[in-house]
Amino acid sequence: MDKNCEFGYRAWLQPGKSLVVPDYTFSGDDGFALKELKRGLAKMNENGHGVIDLSVTSDLVPQSYTITGSLEDVVIKGGCEAGLLYGVYGFVARLHQGHTDFNVVEKPVAAKRILNHWDNITGKIERGYSGNSLFFKDGKVGYNLKRLEDYARLLASVGINEISINNVNVTTESAKLITDYLPDVVKIADVFRPFGIRLIISVHFESPAILGGLETSDPLDAEVASWWKKVAAHVYKAIPDLAGFLVKADSEFRAGPMTLGRTQAEGANVIAAALAPFGATVYWRCFVYNCMQDWRDTATDRPKAAYDYFYPLDGQFDDNVIIQIKHGPSDFQVREPNSPLLGNMDKTRQGIEFQVTQEYTGQQKDLYALAVQWEEIFDHPVTDKANTRELIGNKIEAVVAVANVGDDTNWTGHLLAQANLYAYGRMAWNPNLTAEEVTREWAMLTFGADPAVINPIVDMVLKSRSVYEKYNAPLGIGWMVNINHHYGPSVDGYEYMKWGTYHRADTTAIGVDRTTAGTGYTSQYHPHVQAMYENKETCPEEILLYFHRLPYDYKLKSGQTLIQYIYDTHFEGVEGVEGFIKTWESLKGLLPEEAYTPVKARLQLQLTNAIEWRDVINSYFYRKTGSLDAKGRKIYT
Amino acid sequence: MDKNCEFGYRAWLQPGKSLVVPDYTFSGDDGFALKELKRGLAKMNENGHGVIDLSVTSDLVPQSYTITGSLEDVVIKGGCEAGLLYGVYGFVARLHQGHTDFNVVEKPVAAKRILNHWDNITGKIERGYSGNSLFFKDGKVGYNLKRLEDYARLLASVGINEISINNVNVTTESAKLITDYLPDVVKIADVFRPFGIRLIISVHFESPAILGGLETSDPLDAEVASWWKKVAAHVYKAIPDLAGFLVKADSEFRAGPMTLGRTQAEGANVIAAALAPFGATVYWRCFVYNCMQDWRDTATDRPKAAYDYFYPLDGQFDDNVIIQIKHGPSDFQVREPNSPLLGNMDKTRQGIEFQVTQEYTGQQKDLYALAVQWEEIFDHPVTDKANTRELIGNKIEAVVAVANVGDDTNWTGHLLAQANLYAYGRMAWNPNLTAEEVTREWAMLTFGADPAVINPIVDMVLKSRSVYEKYNAPLGIGWMVNINHHYGPSVDGYEYMKWGTYHRADTTAIGVDRTTAGTGYTSQYHPHVQAMYENKETCPEEILLYFHRLPYDYKLKSGQTLIQYIYDTHFEGVEGVEGFIKTWESLKGLLPEEAYTPVKARLQLQLTNAIEWRDVINSYFYRKTGSLDAKGRKIYT
Repeated sequence: MDKNCEFGYRAWLQPGKSLVVPDYTFSGDDGFALKELKRGLAKMNENGHGVIDLSVTSDLVPQSYTITGSLEDVVIKGGCEAGLLYGVYGFVARLHQGHTDFNVVEKPVAAKRILNHWDNITGKIERGYSGNSLFFKDGKVGYNLKRLEDYARLLASVGINEISINNVNVTTESAKLITDYLPDVVKIADVFRPFGIRLIISVHFESPAILGGLETSDPLDAEVASWWKKVAAHVYKAIPDLAGFLVKADSEFRAGPMTLGRTQAEGANVIAAALAPFGATVYWRCFVYNCMQDWRDTATDRPKAAYDYFYPLDGQFDDNVIIQIKHGPSDFQVREPNSPLLGNMDKTRQGIEFQVTQEYTGQQKDLYALAVQWEEIFDHPVTDKANTRELIGNKIEAVVAVANVGDDTNWTGHLLAQANLYAYGRMAWNPNLTAEEVTREWAMLTFGADPAVINPIVDMVLKSRSVYEKYNAPLGIGWMVNINHHYGPSVDGYEYMKWGTYHRADTTAIGVDRTTAGTGYTSQYHPHVQAMYENKETCPEEILLYFHRLPYDYKLKSGQTLIQYIYDTHFEGVEGVEGFIKTWESLKGLLPEEAYTPVKARLQLQLTNAIEWRDVINSYFYRKTGSLDAKGRKIYT
Repeated sequence: MDKNCEFGYRAWLQPGKSLVVPDYTFSGDDGFALKELKRGLAKMNENGHGVIDLSVTSDLVPQSYTITGSLEDVVIKGGCEAGLLYGVYGFVARLHQGHTDFNVVEKPVAAKRILNHWDNITGKIERGYSGNSLFFKDGKVGYNLKRLEDYARLLASVGINEISINNVNVTTESAKLITDYLPDVVKIADVFRPFGIRLIISVHFESPAILGGLETSDPLDAEVASWWKKVAAHVYKAIPDLAGFLVKADSEFRAGPMTLGRTQAEGANVIAAALAPFGATVYWRCFVYNCMQDWRDTATDRPKAAYDYFYPLDGQFDDNVIIQIKHGPSDFQVREPNSPLLGNMDKTRQGIEFQVTQEYTGQQKDLYALAVQWEEIFDHPVTDKANTRELIGNKIEAVVAVANVGDDTNWTGHLLAQANLYAYGRMAWNPNLTAEEVTREWAMLTFGADPAVINPIVDMVLKSRSVYEKYNAPLGIGWMVNINHHYGPSVDGYEYMKWGTYHRADTTAIGVDRTTAGTGYTSQYHPHVQAMYENKETCPEEILLYFHRLPYDYKLKSGQTLIQYIYDTHFEGVEGVEGFIKTWESLKGLLPEEAYTPVKARLQLQLTNAIEWRDVINSYFYRKTGSLDAKGRKIYT
């Protein structure tokens, strides 16, 4: 590797050359965890002597760990091999954060902390902004084993314990991962296994027809059921610890059980029955909606779809099915309410799905701290009794996210987008961590302990979500993006299309009324939550346009009219990016050139994007309303 | 071939089984023209005896022909082999139109009647709506020789005498047509030669670098000049009658002389010098404009670009360069003024470029009679002295059009789109023909002589341009299409983009002022033409929004306000398509099933498209103005 790229490649696992630690001897468990510990301690300067004892103990629950003692005498215990490994990574991370005494008790809140890769077998990554796939190349499985091992370490160090390797949009070719390509998948599983990471394979719902040559993939067909069983037996013989299969069905032109007149539950269960003997799980995505809506149809309302399709099926899914619910009812927009399905199906196992890859949030050209958004999502109520944070580890047993990595040397394209991958693992492990805490951890592990460096970076990253939101679509209305690639503004881009995403702006008002007086979407929530969103006064203002149609002269709590709010925020968004550039320039000389220069270039790109958003949004609303900015700033008429 | 497809395949060269002609004997020239004559007379019923004498004579100018005599005693003379062939096709066509006495003197008005194929070497056709390429397949030259011969006959029968075979967007691979793939091109040339059709090859401006390995393609570089000479010698040794090279340079991200600090003339001349010894021509496209315009920039005005770049170069192009000028200053929109370059460069040879493929005019899903538009274009003044029709065959010596054919069995996808290919050839031969004349000819040659069949079809085809225009962007403003693929409405699709195509609609007005008080585009015309466009009262109303920015309450000559005109025309457009469907249904049983059913299906598609245009345009303008339809028809708010 080019020496200039090592910094980005190591990410938050930087060698600790500036740290001084005792010259350790080791006792206890001498397996994989010890190897990883020695690697983590390499390049640190030694002073004095110390001992570290490693052990796996049934006193601790699986995956958990404790670290006790002082710098010279450390005891790390794990509830299983993986738990011990987490303890080792946690210990090294704490050294980097200056800890010298340890009284750590850690247990992951969510049992399943999953990354979904949307990697195509072509080698391209759907919604990938960091190069090509680490798993596939030129139409087949293809990888660099050393790099996969480094990737596994990166993920394990933040507690990820399952990964799906191929895109949920499974093609005829990638469907063969469970047949022809299985021997290659075995090799990938072998790399990730020591790191406590189990693989998931995305499967094609029509595999019985595509791979098995059956006439149907109808889940109620006996031959289909027996085909899935036969294939599952074959797969689990090769990879006994495979975590399961992930399925996107009846979604965005993909076939599914509904195509065949069956329910989502029937579709999931036929696969679940095949996986059950192996203790494996079907992850069944709930991203089902009508993507051929007529824009003239104001009765259909896309956010209602997942709940409408899935809620009535509560109790019908097999025990080894986890339904995988996008955190919001739209599609990873900058601001959405939480999905009303979350926590609301008593008899159905649930996972919550996030997107670390920045599809609608800057595509790793623009800085965007997802941790800040996740913290807010965790805060949001989903039932009358609980917010999302409280559900995780309880009703919601799996936390899932679409990965943001590719074969760019620094993994994530934008160096600072590493913060999102780091934060995802940490917050899936412990949703009680704040965005500030995980961002500061990441910054210290990446850039070292100097507050003069860390504080400005943490500050900038934490602000980035708000800045991005300011120059994007206002008040939670979403979707004002260029079609297909989803970068940059196009206010009417999706307005007259079939995707069900409309703002319906006219000369006087904007938005869709989703209250009970409108499409009735709010009635999918528990009464208290519904009441909050139903009423303009109690609806959180930052999401007002998700629920209400408002006139441009609507007065916000600040006293601004809606139209003036749009103008103000869009000017402020650009100023925010200009602020980031100043901040970053102030760090020149304090950061490795390899970090400084490419991030500076991305911030300049972001400024161009922010200006484009500002001017397009402002011009659009000027041209629709005839209102100019009250402060006389430039709007292109 | 499937018997059901023969009708479409034969196009306007249907066998004449219902015609009764004498049992002919032949005298005179017994070459290729006689072979074609016998083929044209095949399947006709014979009654009595007759004689046809064929000859080539230097009494006639090349390409011209005469037909004299009566049905029993016909004399066909050509000014050259090709002229005689045209005479043969012309004779058979006249038989089909019921002629029995002949006193025909025909001479093409334009010496060069050219089709440009935008066929990629991949086999796909850029802006092709009729299947894949007839020339290329899977990344190399690939064709069906029999089909190419049938295609050559189709083109020759309407007088086309030059064709370029590959896309003007030349790739690194297709650049090799003049080197590695030349032997394959030779075979194509051999097929077209007997039909009087010469090939043109589109070449990559950077060929000296790409193919020759030179460090530059700078036209003033001596090595570059000698490379072109060397390659030309090689090409002309293989195909001595190749008509020339076609070049798109400095256009839409393609490199060109301007990239290297040279003029368009310098770029064209280096290639022209290489072709001159062989009597061949460089066709140099004038489609040069800034495709990276900032939408905020209101000073730059794309329609001005071609004139600005080329007019100052008058006199600098070599004698064997023909500059190929799109008929309008935009890009094949439904309605444009004529390019101010046409007829306006005294010392530069000119060709006019049309588009038979229906990129912006319905993509062969929607019926659209280009002949009607061409007739209008010919009528339009381009200088104070002449309209376009008068320039053709004089200042404008080449008529060029982008082809609408592919490997669909009926050549053009939509069966009725054959009318456009037919009309193009006929009107390039003789621009004095009216749209009605050529459409009637085509209809009779295709569907037979029954007025009950022909009259409704001719009527419908002739109306189709107006109907399409009604449901599209209003009054010549153009561009309100979905980006990239250009089918279907998107009013703001290009509004905030870099392509220089803006309508700038706000709550009160729409359009760009292109008069001398605005961008000054009108000043590129001769004084009388300029004066006509400059003044709202004298500007042809159908193109008012090309030149003027108008308030929605602007009163048109009809008394309608602009906004009401938009609504009225969009409702009328849909009614027009409904009328086509009724007309077509009335022909059921009178037409071959093979013609009836697929055309019916296309008309249904067109209706969906027309409704989409109506509703999107009407909603857009309602949402921008707050004005509802004065007649109370449904507008989706």
